[in-house]
Amino acid sequence: MSAPTLDVLAIGNAIVDVIARADDAFLAAEGMAKGGMQLIDAATAEGLYGRMGAGIEASGGSAANTVAGLAALGHRCGFIGQVADDQLGAVFGHDIRALGVTFDVAPRGGTAPTARCLILVTEDGQRTMNTFLGASQFLPEAALDADLIASAAILYLEGYLWDPEEPRAAMRKAIEVARAAGRRIAFSLSDGFVIARHGGDFHSLIGGGLIDILFANEAEITALAGTDDFEAAVAAVAPKVPLLVVTRGADGAIAVQGATRTEVGAEPVAKVVDTTGAGDLFAAGFLAGQAQGRDVRASLRMGAIAAAEVISHYGARPEADLKALVAGALG
Amino acid sequence: MSAPTLDVLAIGNAIVDVIARADDAFLAAEGMAKGGMQLIDAATAEGLYGRMGAGIEASGGSAANTVAGLAALGHRCGFIGQVADDQLGAVFGHDIRALGVTFDVAPRGGTAPTARCLILVTEDGQRTMNTFLGASQFLPEAALDADLIASAAILYLEGYLWDPEEPRAAMRKAIEVARAAGRRIAFSLSDGFVIARHGGDFHSLIGGGLIDILFANEAEITALAGTDDFEAAVAAVAPKVPLLVVTRGADGAIAVQGATRTEVGAEPVAKVVDTTGAGDLFAAGFLAGQAQGRDVRASLRMGAIAAAEVISHYGARPEADLKALVAGALG
Repeated sequence: MSAPTLDVLAIGNAIVDVIARADDAFLAAEGMAKGGMQLIDAATAEGLYGRMGAGIEASGGSAANTVAGLAALGHRCGFIGQVADDQLGAVFGHDIRALGVTFDVAPRGGTAPTARCLILVTEDGQRTMNTFLGASQFLPEAALDADLIASAAILYLEGYLWDPEEPRAAMRKAIEVARAAGRRIAFSLSDGFVIARHGGDFHSLIGGGLIDILFANEAEITALAGTDDFEAAVAAVAPKVPLLVVTRGADGAIAVQGATRTEVGAEPVAKVVDTTGAGDLFAAGFLAGQAQGRDVRASLRMGAIAAAEVISHYGARPEADLKALVAGALG
Repeated sequence: MSAPTLDVLAIGNAIVDVIARADDAFLAAEGMAKGGMQLIDAATAEGLYGRMGAGIEASGGSAANTVAGLAALGHRCGFIGQVADDQLGAVFGHDIRALGVTFDVAPRGGTAPTARCLILVTEDGQRTMNTFLGASQFLPEAALDADLIASAAILYLEGYLWDPEEPRAAMRKAIEVARAAGRRIAFSLSDGFVIARHGGDFHSLIGGGLIDILFANEAEITALAGTDDFEAAVAAVAPKVPLLVVTRGADGAIAVQGATRTEVGAEPVAKVVDTTGAGDLFAAGFLAGQAQGRDVRASLRMGAIAAAEVISHYGARPEADLKALVAGALG
């Protein structure tokens, strides 16, 4: 096996976010579960877009945000995801390549447009996401560049990919390729509702020893474990993965590696503007720490620093110099 | 003549901004004049986009930003500008309508895409703009809804419209319609380079008594007057317009109405993040003050408040509650 040339290769939905402010009454009128992610079809997306306020557009996608954060922290990354041959697809491709991330999947022709996520941000900084997957759901197995996957020390997958059929099938292939190359596999549970739909698959991946690093938040770990008790959920899941990382919002984050549990507090934030991307950037910081050979505590701190930066402004990708923030805090 | 039903009807280029950070070395390597606006063609736009960093997209356009600010301040507005039948055109249309602004111009078919402005923001908050006019330059005279123009108390035009041929011709028609309906005409000089190209036209409009309120910044008023001396420029131009408003960045703004000169300081800003839209929002605040029957000093203060808000974040449209900011400062 040759040495990896990339630190992380991520596979995820290739999405452009449309971010607008909304109040709780709007979420209620639209029947949305605050803080969650729901999949919507083209007609629903058009209707909702017509009712929501003026927004800004920014490249997003959970795993794509994570590699954007990793790239900002100086790491070599690749991304695999499907955009359409349209203006938003060009925006997504430009933004991720501009960060130095390898992204070679050809835009898809046809009528399905590039995926967009209509994100409503309330005054408390909470984000509620409505995703129209468009072209992203047609990521074919053929788009998985086996050499690229094998070239990365870590393969990072988002749970969201389990919703659309084609990418779900492709993920098995990606995992096989990474395993055959002796790489580590990191996985984000993504969202409680995704777990409700695909928890069986996730349990089977974890139980099969295919996940080396598992990322979750409190809602996700409890949903996966089928309990309301956070500690019980951690106790149930941790023995099944070499490294479990659970974010707890304002309460910081924990990691469990074998018998060792490590906790860090959240980084202080002057004002939480938009929590979109908090988990994605936490994963970025943590994986960067791991790639740099730092210990679990320092990796958690890096996750917390990257997450704090991204929730202090609109949009799910870092604006500030993450490298400088980390250097200032950890050296 | 019937009473106006709109406070302001603006005509301008319908543009989506692509905002990315850059350093001075990048501007120098690209041969850009920092702080200015240059027109670029499709091929240049594509090349520059490929070289610039990851960005965010947000609806822009000078006059469109001004009506967005007016709408945020509670005023009834309309906008006339040309987008294409594409994703960025849909973004522009959604964002302006979501603010309650009347915008009825049909998207244009054909190959020219919606206009975009590639904006490079340096660490000092200065913005350097590169505009590909695309569909916007084809705003036809037929798109000028005479009833809509006549229905607004103030017709607001941006100098940028003089660059493309079709809108330039259409502007004469719009001015005639507004004049015939007994409306006031406000005009923004937009940019020093625009004045270099079309100063003759601007002098003829002003000299012909067609401009009731003239907006300029220091660079523009001196360019128009053909002098480096700010006071000499004000003295030369002020007698030719009923109301002259000149913004001076961190030095505040002045207005000259007949023999009366009024000055206000700039509103304090914690950090200047991105000056894009500063002049546009100053005009919005000032025109809102005028529409509310406030005196020139209060109108200038409102302009300064709106400008301070927009330069405190990325993007040329207000994020904070401008009404509340004004109420807090002026009651």
